[in-house]
Amino acid sequence: MTSRHDSPMDSGLLSPVRAGTPVEEAVGDLAWLQAMLDAEAALARAQAGLGTLPQKVADVIGAEARAEHLDLRELALAARETANPVVGLVQALTRRVAAADPEAANYVHRGSTSQDIFDTGAMLVAQRALRLMRADLARSAEALAALARSHRDTTMAGRTLALHAVPTTFGLKAAGWRRLLLDADLRLERVLAGGLPVSLGGAAGTLAGYLEYARLDGDGPVDAGDYTARLTEAFARETGLAAAELPWHTLRTPVADLAAALAFTAAALGKIAVDVQSLTRTEVGEVTEPAVSGRGSSSAMPHKRNPVLATLVRSAALQVPVLAAGVTQCMLSEDERSAGAWHAEWQLLRECLRLTGGATHTLVELAEGLEVRPERMAGNLALTGGQIVSERIAAVLAPRLGKAEAKQALTRASHAAQHSGRPLADVLAESEELRGHFTAGELAELCDPGRYTGGAAALVDRAVGERR
Amino acid sequence: MTSRHDSPMDSGLLSPVRAGTPVEEAVGDLAWLQAMLDAEAALARAQAGLGTLPQKVADVIGAEARAEHLDLRELALAARETANPVVGLVQALTRRVAAADPEAANYVHRGSTSQDIFDTGAMLVAQRALRLMRADLARSAEALAALARSHRDTTMAGRTLALHAVPTTFGLKAAGWRRLLLDADLRLERVLAGGLPVSLGGAAGTLAGYLEYARLDGDGPVDAGDYTARLTEAFARETGLAAAELPWHTLRTPVADLAAALAFTAAALGKIAVDVQSLTRTEVGEVTEPAVSGRGSSSAMPHKRNPVLATLVRSAALQVPVLAAGVTQCMLSEDERSAGAWHAEWQLLRECLRLTGGATHTLVELAEGLEVRPERMAGNLALTGGQIVSERIAAVLAPRLGKAEAKQALTRASHAAQHSGRPLADVLAESEELRGHFTAGELAELCDPGRYTGGAAALVDRAVGERR
Amino acid sequence: MTSRHDSPMDSGLLSPVRAGTPVEEAVGDLAWLQAMLDAEAALARAQAGLGTLPQKVADVIGAEARAEHLDLRELALAARETANPVVGLVQALTRRVAAADPEAANYVHRGSTSQDIFDTGAMLVAQRALRLMRADLARSAEALAALARSHRDTTMAGRTLALHAVPTTFGLKAAGWRRLLLDADLRLERVLAGGLPVSLGGAAGTLAGYLEYARLDGDGPVDAGDYTARLTEAFARETGLAAAELPWHTLRTPVADLAAALAFTAAALGKIAVDVQSLTRTEVGEVTEPAVSGRGSSSAMPHKRNPVLATLVRSAALQVPVLAAGVTQCMLSEDERSAGAWHAEWQLLRECLRLTGGATHTLVELAEGLEVRPERMAGNLALTGGQIVSERIAAVLAPRLGKAEAKQALTRASHAAQHSGRPLADVLAESEELRGHFTAGELAELCDPGRYTGGAAALVDRAVGERR
Amino acid sequence: MTSRHDSPMDSGLLSPVRAGTPVEEAVGDLAWLQAMLDAEAALARAQAGLGTLPQKVADVIGAEARAEHLDLRELALAARETANPVVGLVQALTRRVAAADPEAANYVHRGSTSQDIFDTGAMLVAQRALRLMRADLARSAEALAALARSHRDTTMAGRTLALHAVPTTFGLKAAGWRRLLLDADLRLERVLAGGLPVSLGGAAGTLAGYLEYARLDGDGPVDAGDYTARLTEAFARETGLAAAELPWHTLRTPVADLAAALAFTAAALGKIAVDVQSLTRTEVGEVTEPAVSGRGSSSAMPHKRNPVLATLVRSAALQVPVLAAGVTQCMLSEDERSAGAWHAEWQLLRECLRLTGGATHTLVELAEGLEVRPERMAGNLALTGGQIVSERIAAVLAPRLGKAEAKQALTRASHAAQHSGRPLADVLAESEELRGHFTAGELAELCDPGRYTGGAAALVDRAVGERR
Repeated sequence: MTSRHDSPMDSGLLSPVRAGTPVEEAVGDLAWLQAMLDAEAALARAQAGLGTLPQKVADVIGAEARAEHLDLRELALAARETANPVVGLVQALTRRVAAADPEAANYVHRGSTSQDIFDTGAMLVAQRALRLMRADLARSAEALAALARSHRDTTMAGRTLALHAVPTTFGLKAAGWRRLLLDADLRLERVLAGGLPVSLGGAAGTLAGYLEYARLDGDGPVDAGDYTARLTEAFARETGLAAAELPWHTLRTPVADLAAALAFTAAALGKIAVDVQSLTRTEVGEVTEPAVSGRGSSSAMPHKRNPVLATLVRSAALQVPVLAAGVTQCMLSEDERSAGAWHAEWQLLRECLRLTGGATHTLVELAEGLEVRPERMAGNLALTGGQIVSERIAAVLAPRLGKAEAKQALTRASHAAQHSGRPLADVLAESEELRGHFTAGELAELCDPGRYTGGAAALVDRAVGERR
Repeated sequence: MTSRHDSPMDSGLLSPVRAGTPVEEAVGDLAWLQAMLDAEAALARAQAGLGTLPQKVADVIGAEARAEHLDLRELALAARETANPVVGLVQALTRRVAAADPEAANYVHRGSTSQDIFDTGAMLVAQRALRLMRADLARSAEALAALARSHRDTTMAGRTLALHAVPTTFGLKAAGWRRLLLDADLRLERVLAGGLPVSLGGAAGTLAGYLEYARLDGDGPVDAGDYTARLTEAFARETGLAAAELPWHTLRTPVADLAAALAFTAAALGKIAVDVQSLTRTEVGEVTEPAVSGRGSSSAMPHKRNPVLATLVRSAALQVPVLAAGVTQCMLSEDERSAGAWHAEWQLLRECLRLTGGATHTLVELAEGLEVRPERMAGNLALTGGQIVSERIAAVLAPRLGKAEAKQALTRASHAAQHSGRPLADVLAESEELRGHFTAGELAELCDPGRYTGGAAALVDRAVGERR
Repeated sequence: MTSRHDSPMDSGLLSPVRAGTPVEEAVGDLAWLQAMLDAEAALARAQAGLGTLPQKVADVIGAEARAEHLDLRELALAARETANPVVGLVQALTRRVAAADPEAANYVHRGSTSQDIFDTGAMLVAQRALRLMRADLARSAEALAALARSHRDTTMAGRTLALHAVPTTFGLKAAGWRRLLLDADLRLERVLAGGLPVSLGGAAGTLAGYLEYARLDGDGPVDAGDYTARLTEAFARETGLAAAELPWHTLRTPVADLAAALAFTAAALGKIAVDVQSLTRTEVGEVTEPAVSGRGSSSAMPHKRNPVLATLVRSAALQVPVLAAGVTQCMLSEDERSAGAWHAEWQLLRECLRLTGGATHTLVELAEGLEVRPERMAGNLALTGGQIVSERIAAVLAPRLGKAEAKQALTRASHAAQHSGRPLADVLAESEELRGHFTAGELAELCDPGRYTGGAAALVDRAVGERR
Repeated sequence: MTSRHDSPMDSGLLSPVRAGTPVEEAVGDLAWLQAMLDAEAALARAQAGLGTLPQKVADVIGAEARAEHLDLRELALAARETANPVVGLVQALTRRVAAADPEAANYVHRGSTSQDIFDTGAMLVAQRALRLMRADLARSAEALAALARSHRDTTMAGRTLALHAVPTTFGLKAAGWRRLLLDADLRLERVLAGGLPVSLGGAAGTLAGYLEYARLDGDGPVDAGDYTARLTEAFARETGLAAAELPWHTLRTPVADLAAALAFTAAALGKIAVDVQSLTRTEVGEVTEPAVSGRGSSSAMPHKRNPVLATLVRSAALQVPVLAAGVTQCMLSEDERSAGAWHAEWQLLRECLRLTGGATHTLVELAEGLEVRPERMAGNLALTGGQIVSERIAAVLAPRLGKAEAKQALTRASHAAQHSGRPLADVLAESEELRGHFTAGELAELCDPGRYTGGAAALVDRAVGERR
């Protein structure tokens, strides 16, 4: 029976970025409990496969190891007695198994330790969550690639330190966003491919309990090296996880790797979010979030279409890096099991998973529906009256006027243009120093932002795989 | 109706330090929802008190503003549309009110904005949680004061950089722990006393909406300065919170202060936890956690009595400081409402509250039940054969032998004692250099750790208020 | 002699926010060294005042305790031998004193321990740095108060979630910035006033060494409680710091308090910086940083005037909160002196001090020279054709059309205005639903942003102390 | 001329973990300045190679681009004008080049932007620092492998939650430490192999400036895609760095990857440090740090040999994860260059580099000189009178007495042994329940910790590559 307590402590109310997204359920308490039960069942199957546990016992354990049979809240409360939820889980599972087959109950959690079950369950949960994220990232990357291609030549202001610098293209910006998603995906894939490992160490990482029972329960001599290797392999096979070279109770590489990859992913999404927000500003208006019924509406201000998706994504991106730092610090785990550093990881890791997974899911809608407004980009480009290409003008003037003189002439003209509101090309055309150097047409071309996007188009072609 | 979804996302399974503690429920989603509804009701009462909203409307709103009437999960999901849960809350509340009194429905959330309701609700939740923590801290501090008094003269090894340094007393250690709790309590009290403020700013912090409705709904001219001040005061009075000088939508002092005080508190508790663990180690054995049925037992290793309470406390102490840093960073909230920094605060703040409150609650049991073992302390003091008082011996020898010579003589004797396992007093008694300087009795007294606890007893007396 | 090594490890090249600011030197290695030497000298004076150390010895120690006599780099390198720089400092100081007066050399660091000297030095450094910051904050707060007063009625767009919401005033924004500075200043003042304490505990916090020497060096019986209290008071008096109730070697309240106050201050400044940047954007242009020769210029883009000061301030604000979290975590200091947690504090704390102090100094120039452009604010307010007051219009329409109908009418009109680019007032004037409800003049007034700033002016008056 | 200011801001005094280690100089300001100058010189060579800059100009630039020619402090101070040190660097370099060859001065920093030079310099610095770390890690890993092999069968207590759990071996512990170092090395190698990239984007990431000058300075038409690709490749070749697919001014993957790998490395070292400290404790005494003259000595307590190296390593491990989180958060870099997020990275990244590199260097001495004391391990194993193998006894008893009965019998015996101080084997031998089940010899063997190390030896063989 699932818990029916009337006040769930956390149903997502304070974390809309993940509320209702697939990852939320995939890493929720019920899924986590099931993953730990899956670990118990897989361990029994692995032991049965090696002949040290009756196959029918493994079957009974497998049948009973269902989260819906246990009371989640009861287990949560019981975890205070031992500082982890596995002891209570094993007791509850044992009771279930005993009811089905009294003899089988002796074999539950045979030779095992809480951390083996918890950590294996955590890896299962993480594996499923990462797969969800990767699917999201693939969709977003595809959408951004399409945006990059269609806006390969859409000129817009490049902005540095909050100000217009030189022109760029929206295609290049979208290609950069996509690059970050691919980078994030690569880091998640690496964690998955490197192999999230089963945890199998027994009480203090020597697998002594597993070996002792193998000797007691099997029907022949047991070689420690051979048996521990085969048990680890079998457990890995039964769970779909990898085998680690050494028990990792206090060698927290798998967890630290997860945290780092998730922090990277969340922050990469955050970059896209802050860019979208920057471009969404009322005065800028170069992009808007997809217009979906209800989304982004303000109760009091009906004219607003808030960049809600970017806001949600950014809210996750602001949280995950510090949470992940907390996980990394837990690598300082003393002895064969830490008295606290292990326990501090759990909620932090889960929060990293669900915030990042919520953000990847949220980004799909943003990336697939982003509205781009080239006309606003063009309008904004014109705001500085051509000054956005002053870098180019300085370069062109230098060989004719000398570098220093050119810079001064341009600075003067820039200030004049800025104060008068007149186009820079016009101011330059009247400038004493330039007399005779350029025709008005040449000046106009020089001052055209669309003619000064450098390698933007070529970079887009290179990045999104289409060359012309 | 409360949500009945079958898989609560977080029922405490991964966070035993707070599972089932009072703070968990006090800051849970249901409590948070009720606090926001309390804010809506209080706002209506405040407006009614100023004559701009009918009193009977305020009564209806107050009667309907009950969390059990709303569907928590539905609100959590709806929050994705607008990036916050208040828009959905207002809609649901309005429907309830409309059913009771169609006219009253027009007055729900009158002139208000989501952030006013959310932040006021958050302050209510925080206020209640801090009061729980302070009660816990008071109990723990009292227990530690009693320990400090009873062990005022219980000599034990002072340890620096992992090694015995000079003697201290357990009384002084307990007095130091208590001092940290008082420091934490003072910081929580300061936050409470400084006044957790209501949030009242309207759409962009000018209270324009409230004023507009006051003019529309009231029966006379409205002075902006007077009305906004009176409304703020009334809202504060109705909620039991304080009035802020300025709307604080993006002036996040109250939230940052909370985070800082909670991080301090959690880390202060963490210091006690790491000390308890250090003293609990099998080889040290100077304290043990209270022996309560079930607590700290290990399924596979029946002899163990794990320091579970210290472990839980430390697990919180390792998390809260980084979570709090995340909150502090959200002070970089742009404009009149941040697109993400505000939203990132919520779960971080709640997690700070429930981890710290879980830890304060857990510490009560630890502090009240800690078993102290003076005989193990005495045994450990003897381990270095008197070397633990070498500082004193060096001081006493110096005027007789010269500082450098004294140090060398002592170093030699220390190494000899260390290698031979003989008491330092004996080695010194045979030393060539000391011949004639001390009697054996004087040397024995010099080497007695109990005679070299310095001002420890006086410090205890000063700290816990009992002078002899 | 001061170190003359050819490659200073850190001369500020990577940290322009603090390069050359007063705080940089105040917390630099040389100042830190001097502060530790000041602590040694003050300890000798305190002991002399209590009659346990010859006054002329205290004079010699005071005369020799000059940083310029020691080799900074040599001390830094020597610190690797003992994990702290004090052991080497004491040796070097003792050599200097011995050269001046061989007998006096015996009294250097009498009864003391490295942590007493280091921590007392750190508090001296922090005290000086905080005073510099407070002076900076006072200047900035004054400048912002003046801005708030002069722009009390300067209407501008209030922005939420990146979009125009309802109007506000620049005066209210400046008053809010000032409020944050006052909040920060209050937190720094509290740390200073609560009293940064001397550290005086001896080897393991019992003051046993000090007492032993008092007995050996003084001329009468020594009462532990009385002497330790008087020595602590005297040391506090001689340094200008406060006396702590208990030695705080592993009760890290003073350091944690500093870190929290600095994180708050830096983040408060960061809020101002992100707002300045938001308003500086080319498309917004409502403020610009002070135009000082060279400041903010771009080599390649002469037209740019980068918001350099805000950039520097924000760079600090992004760093200090995580650094401060690192300090807070060091509260988990085991035993009587931690083997690492104490040592991890030092550079983190110094970095918090110099980044925050650099930021406060940088803000002064920004606050005193900020150029405000009311004409751009007015221009931007007009961008949405009056939609920025839609909240008000909805409120006014509701009683005439009904709440839901009003909202729908307004939403329709808003969309029409947005798509056509026509002023909302005009669209509304033609609207079927409103026919007969308002005159064109009433609609124009309703749609005037300057008439919908709510209590902004009153809030400014309240905050900056001038009422009209 | 190198700066000669009298008070270097940071000469390592507060950071002994890195003072004087090779990484300190490799990432110091002077090295950083030289790396940026190397980037300028390499850019000129790359442009010369493509025929758009005279080769002799590249030679002059290369000859003048020496850090010792510039004034570090002057550059640091000048960086406040533009928020980065490159503008001043370019001016100073240009002056030097102009003095040597006035014409060449026009070609300095041709088409470039501050961020290209700074970031390329940072990558060069990081590359050199990582190579130093990898060499250190290799030495430490080798030393730990040797320890693992020699102590393959050295039984010691496995400790979980601060208490003895079941036996393990020191060989397995050392093999685990080595595994973490290999994991860290793999992550550093991956960063190096993936290729730390040059930064080449020009003012806003389009390379427009480079292209413009190529057209002006070259002698033929320039294809944007071809030229930017070739320039990037050439720049990469000239610096020894990699080419990035896209300019990464605000796509901060390389910096975030560095921070993550460094945090992992520091925290991995920290795990070893806390273990060494745990085993060094006076009561445990199973390892001691290498006894080198001076190292670890205490001025006041001559008997102490403090675990100084572990303390230094831990001090770094406590800092780097939070610093790295700060770097990761800077991924939220808005637009084409962030106004602050970029600038916040610099000192954080450098601090991560030098703390981690200091720690890897410090660990070499620790790993190569660690003294292991098998006799103390044996002594400690005996402390619980055999209870450390209770897991095994429970397993063996269960099939004979039934699982529950066996557990109860053992728990009773454990408590009796604990209270009486008698060996568990003796208590069991007298137990009513076991009568007739085991001989005294069988019980003695069952209770021998050395017979219950499970797969420890096999795991060591597997991990350190030697099978027997």
